[in-house]
This record gives sequence, structure tokens and C-alpha cells, in this order.
Amino acid sequence: MTDLFRLSASVLARRMRAGEVSAVAVMEAHLDAIRAREPSLRAFAHLDEAAALEGARAADRHLARGGAAGPLHGLPLGVKDVLDVAGMPSGYGSPIWEGFVPRADSAAVALARAAGAVVIGKTVTTEFATRRPGPTANPVNPAHTPGGSSSGSAAGVAAGFFPLAFGTQTAGSVLRPAAFCGVVGYMPSHGAIHRAGMKVMSETLDTIGALARTVADCALLVGAMTRAEPGDPAARPDRAPRLLLCLGDAAQAAPETLALMERAAEAAGRAGATVTRGEMPAAVTAAAAAHPVVMNMESAQALAWELAHHREAVSDVLREKLEPAAAMPASALAAARTAFAAARAAFPGVIADFDAVLTPAAPGEAPAGLEWTGDPVFNLLWTALGAPAVSVPAGLGPRGLPLGVQIVAAPGRDRDALLWAEWMRQVLE
Amino acid sequence: MTDLFRLSASVLARRMRAGEVSAVAVMEAHLDAIRAREPSLRAFAHLDEAAALEGARAADRHLARGGAAGPLHGLPLGVKDVLDVAGMPSGYGSPIWEGFVPRADSAAVALARAAGAVVIGKTVTTEFATRRPGPTANPVNPAHTPGGSSSGSAAGVAAGFFPLAFGTQTAGSVLRPAAFCGVVGYMPSHGAIHRAGMKVMSETLDTIGALARTVADCALLVGAMTRAEPGDPAARPDRAPRLLLCLGDAAQAAPETLALMERAAEAAGRAGATVTRGEMPAAVTAAAAAHPVVMNMESAQALAWELAHHREAVSDVLREKLEPAAAMPASALAAARTAFAAARAAFPGVIADFDAVLTPAAPGEAPAGLEWTGDPVFNLLWTALGAPAVSVPAGLGPRGLPLGVQIVAAPGRDRDALLWAEWMRQVLE
Repeated sequence: MTDLFRLSASVLARRMRAGEVSAVAVMEAHLDAIRAREPSLRAFAHLDEAAALEGARAADRHLARGGAAGPLHGLPLGVKDVLDVAGMPSGYGSPIWEGFVPRADSAAVALARAAGAVVIGKTVTTEFATRRPGPTANPVNPAHTPGGSSSGSAAGVAAGFFPLAFGTQTAGSVLRPAAFCGVVGYMPSHGAIHRAGMKVMSETLDTIGALARTVADCALLVGAMTRAEPGDPAARPDRAPRLLLCLGDAAQAAPETLALMERAAEAAGRAGATVTRGEMPAAVTAAAAAHPVVMNMESAQALAWELAHHREAVSDVLREKLEPAAAMPASALAAARTAFAAARAAFPGVIADFDAVLTPAAPGEAPAGLEWTGDPVFNLLWTALGAPAVSVPAGLGPRGLPLGVQIVAAPGRDRDALLWAEWMRQVLE
Repeated sequence: MTDLFRLSASVLARRMRAGEVSAVAVMEAHLDAIRAREPSLRAFAHLDEAAALEGARAADRHLARGGAAGPLHGLPLGVKDVLDVAGMPSGYGSPIWEGFVPRADSAAVALARAAGAVVIGKTVTTEFATRRPGPTANPVNPAHTPGGSSSGSAAGVAAGFFPLAFGTQTAGSVLRPAAFCGVVGYMPSHGAIHRAGMKVMSETLDTIGALARTVADCALLVGAMTRAEPGDPAARPDRAPRLLLCLGDAAQAAPETLALMERAAEAAGRAGATVTRGEMPAAVTAAAAAHPVVMNMESAQALAWELAHHREAVSDVLREKLEPAAAMPASALAAARTAFAAARAAFPGVIADFDAVLTPAAPGEAPAGLEWTGDPVFNLLWTALGAPAVSVPAGLGPRGLPLGVQIVAAPGRDRDALLWAEWMRQVLE
């Protein structure tokens, strides 16, 4: 029983639906893993073991009574603490919200629960999913950051605390921690999952995503919630992809990342892919330049109440970004959004001859220390484009910490992003 | 003193800043109007006179101590009950949320308060800003609907309960009640005001807007919140506009509306405008056809918790829309959003030779009875386009109820929408 926490969500769901294993046994296995490592890892903002077990028992009762098993039946789900869960405290990573218990589930949580998932607890987020880190450590080496802002979700999936988790991304908050912790991160096309009941910062950017140990698990979670048909990423495609190898701001990449991308290109070529090197044109990269304006001006509006009534409880690093942004004219936001719109219009044409973009998931290994969650420089452009992006594990760096590569497709082409991400993962094995 | 409740927000703010009248006196005048008519009008979902007066006293104290007077200093503000106000119950027009008191202000309310506004209370919304009406009556004739979903905000502005109010629009929920109640409604370009702390239904469509008695007052409210420069709509422009008279689905317009649009075209022409008749091309009107798919599929996600846990407390008329939408595949939503994107890309070019579109604000006068808030057929296309739209009063119909005309500009051109709406209003006087 103790290895249940190492299995993929897809396998666990199949076994539970078939009655081969109970939801309680699956939950117990994950709680065992939590008991062993949570004291040092600190992935949870809120964990109530009794409530998690009661959720699992309810799933078992539902099946025993002949109820239909949803696609996520019985699967423990970690929920980033910027998404409300009814009856569990929502702290949003800020002391301002201490003790707040929402009445309702966020839309994402309600949709996952309707598909059978069992919420195991709330996972640590940085302050309002921005810069100030929480206490979570990297499960591979606790002296390093797990990345952020979806810190607890990435670390918890890697540590076997839950097979599925929600993250959210404004710049690189799903993809980067996934890479740093050696798990899969999937940011679907912008707008795939409704943000009702989420502590939204940037309406233009924020996207709810999935973290799991396999690409297929990420597809399972998002597909079950949205009735999308993500295909079966684990099914071997009958051809190799046409990839655009895009290094982006290569000066920001560590040597191990540049070496990894060369290795990835070679391995993909050997496996039959055509790999073309190229960079995004200025009309597209203009969105990266506009990204901080959109993020900070919209976030300053989002936190208007906190800044007005609890200014001293907002971290310095966040205030330094938001207060100047709040003083900027609406015309600056409008110009930045215009750059976004132009980039979004141009992007599908730029990659029309390719199945996907292959690009680094992060600058390198997870930085040492827990004071900084790392740089989203390799993620924020794709977030600004609203493009689906998947980060897959790609071995270890010189300090023994995980590396990842990122596969990006045009908005709406989530199937391609998932399919070729899994293909790339297998090629790199 | 008793006529203070008839003055525009712009005049009231100027007088309060100059110390000619206190915020308490202004609040008292509006509370007097409320005491006289609220029992029959029922514009409020929540009203606490003592709290409103305390807010006004705080504004007076702030000024007396030498504090800077914000652009909305002391102005009573009605807040549609889908926007949270800290410490006031948020009912969202649904029994499911009875007794819920949010901890924080929505971003819109926090921004308005930071600019000096004083929240006077929460105004009646239809159920979740959708179809089932609240108890509010039309202030011109209480046997008729005030329109919806921003029912209480429109009726309250018309009745002198407050000079400014927030509404929200997914199809026609700001513009239509404004027309039915004889006030000005302004839906800014999509995304102008952050929706944090709003009960959002459709992320793609929902837009926070303003209701007031003058165009300048609407510009004052939104400009103060967003640091936009809306210009001075009351300043006479040095030329007349080039207008595209667009009847839209003319078969849906009552005879009085068709007559009004002819009168408006004539009056505009006499005042120097060039008035060209034309309709939107199919690439643009495709967004109107896609509108219900986007609205219902996104709203079904938004209300996933309510539908899972309080299905019996969701009205039949809403469930009939949402439950089929929840069963539709994600590909249907993707196709509808693609139609939106194409229409949004085409629209600015279509109206490039014009300053604004002139179009009906509603099919006709407010329908009789309180069971139906009327048809948003003349509003939903512009909402889908994310275009700024302003409804201005344009006399009375055959049953003595208000009519309105609507001025629409390209997204981002809010100044044009406001300027030419006020020009049109003056021309129709």
C-alpha cells in the first residue's frame, strides 16, 4: 500500500474506479508521505487530515452505492492557497487574510470536485502569488527554493503528498516551480478555467494550471474540469514534431540550461523531429516588455483594498512594485494591452510551420536559499500570449537539482502542447 | 438643502471640496429622498443609514483636518450587489448567499473610496446579474420594470437616492436599465475596472460600469478610479461628429424606437453631423451569435459550486440556461471565443471613418410588470466587442416612459464615446 503515493493520478483513478483500491487507502498513503516529510518541506498552508480522510470515505461510499465514478474519482488534490475551498482558510499568502474562511469553493475546485477529486489541503503560495516567498523548501534539496508562486503545489507533487495540484501563473508561477521540483506543469490556454473564487491579481494574465507527475495527469485534471478533449498525451504519435527551438533571452540561461537545450535538440532530431532554431519577432517579444506594466498596474487595482487598509502588512517588495504602478495613467495600461493584442495576433502565424516551440522552462536549477523563488524570464512571454505551455522534467543539473524544458503551442492548441511535451519528455529519458 | 439630491455628482463634488456644503448635508438630502420613495421603489438590497452618515462625517472630518479632497470626495455611491463592500452583506441576488458579509471591498469599491466616494448601500441586482428579477420598480412608473440586471443602481440614480452608482454588464445590464429609467449608463472598454471582489459570471464579457444623471458624472467616477483622462464630456466640441447610424436588429425595435432614431439622425444632421446609415458586417455580428455560448458556458463554470451544492436554490430560468451549457464541450466555447476575437479585430476598421456608432439603447420603453427586465438585443454585440458604450436619455415614449440612445466607439476610445454621447444628448434636448 505504501507505494500508492508514487503512482500517477491516471493509474490511481483507474484502480479506484475498478474497485481495486479504495479512496481511503490512496488518501492514507499520501497522508503517510505527508507525515514523513511535511515538517521539513512545509508545502501546506492548511491541512486537516480528518477532513481529507472524510472526503475519501465519501468517495468510497459514493461508489459503493452505485454512484458514477467521475474521471478524477478519489484523487487527492492540492489546492494553491489563492483558490478558495469552502470551509478551509484562504490565506492568499498574506497575514491580511489570516483566519478568513470562504463560504464557497472557487469554480476550479467545484469543477474538480464535481469530477470526483478530493481536496487534501491548501498549498503554500507566495504573498498573493507574487514575490515574497512562503516557507516551502525544494523536495530535492531543502536548501533551495521550490520556485513560486505555486511553491507548495510543485513541492507537494514531487514529494508524493498528492498526485494532482492546482497552480496559477501570472509570469512563470506554474512552469518554473514545476521545473525546479522535477514535476510536470501545465498552463492551459488563457481562460480555459474560470477564475471565480480565485484571488486574481492580473485579469489579463492570471491563468489556473495543473501540476502533476505526468503530462497525462495534467491533461486528465484540466480535461475533466473543462470538458476539453486533450487527447491522450501518453499515446505515441505516428510522427515526430516540427519544433522551433527558441532560446529567448539566452543571456539569462545558465550553462547547464544551454547544454540541456542542445541535448534536447539533438535527441529530438535523432528521434525524427525537424528542429529549427529561431527567435520570436519584435512584434511578439513586445509583449514581454509590456508584461510588467500589465501585471503591476492590474495587480495594484486588484489589491486596492489591501493597500488602502492594510498597507503595513503588504511586503516591501510588493509595495515597491504596486505603488508606482497605481500612480501610472490608464494610458500606460492601454498601450501595454495594445502590445499584448498585437503580439497575440501575430504569434500563431509566426509558429504556423511548427507543431510547437521548444524553449527553456527556467534559467537553470533552483536558486539556493528560500528568499527568492527565481526568475520567470523564460515563461512570461508565453503567459502574455495566452499560449498553452507544458514544462517536463529533463534530468538534473550540476548541483543535482532538476531541470526542465518547456513546450509551447498557439492559443487553443492545448492538445499539441501536451502531446509534444510528452513526446519530448520520452525522448529526453 | 432638500434639492441637493437633484444635483449632479460633478457639481456636488465641487461644492463639497469648496466647503460650501458638507458631505453630511449631501448624504442627508439623499437619505431624505430614500425615506420618501424607497418603500415603493425598493432599489436597495442593503441600506444602513447610520453607516452612510458615518461615512459622510468621516469625509467631512478628513477635509476639516486639511486632508486632500479626492475627485469623488463625499459623493454617495450606490453599489450593485454583485460587488463586495467590506462589512456589508453581499447577496448577489440569490438566497444562496444570504447573510454573507465579505471582509474586503471589491477593487472597484476600494478605488472609488480611495478617490473619496462614500458607499451609501448595496443596490438590487437580478439573481447573479442574470435573469430572475429583484423587487425594484421603475421610478417613472412603478408598474414597469426598471430593467436589469443593474436594477437598483439605475432606479436609485433616477430617484435621487445617490448621484453615482456601479452597475455591471454581461449583455445589456448597464445600458438597458439606464435607458429604461432615464439616466446615463456608461460601460467602459472591457477591462477598464478590475473585477476582484465581484461575483463574476462571464470572464470574457463582464464589465463594471457607471450609472449617473449626466455623462460627465459617469466620466468622473470611472476616470477617478482608473486614472484615465476621459476628457470633459460637458465641454462643447469644436466640430460635429461623423456618426454611423446602426439600427442592428431593427425588427426587435418598437415603433417609438425607430421614430426616435430617425429624430436623432435628423437632429444630429441639423447640428452639423454627418450621419451615415449602415450595419455591421457578418464578421462583426458573428460575435452576437456567439454571445449566448460564451455567456452561458462561462457562467456555468462560475456557478459550479452553487449548482453542485445549492441547485434547488438556483432559479429555474437560470438552471435552464446553465445546465445545458455545462454539458457542452470545451470546443464550443473555444469556437465562440474565436468568433469574438475575429469580431474584435474587425470592428475598429469597420468604424474607422466614424467618430461613433449611434444605435438604440433598448427595444423601446420599459416593459410592463416586474417579472422580466427586458431584452438586451441592442446591447450585447457591443459588450461582446468590449467596446465603450454610453446610453443617454432621449425623451419619453408613448406610455410616458424614458427612451435612450446609445453611442458606441472602438475599444479604448472611451473619450469619443463619452464626448459624442453628451453631444448627442444636447442635440436631442
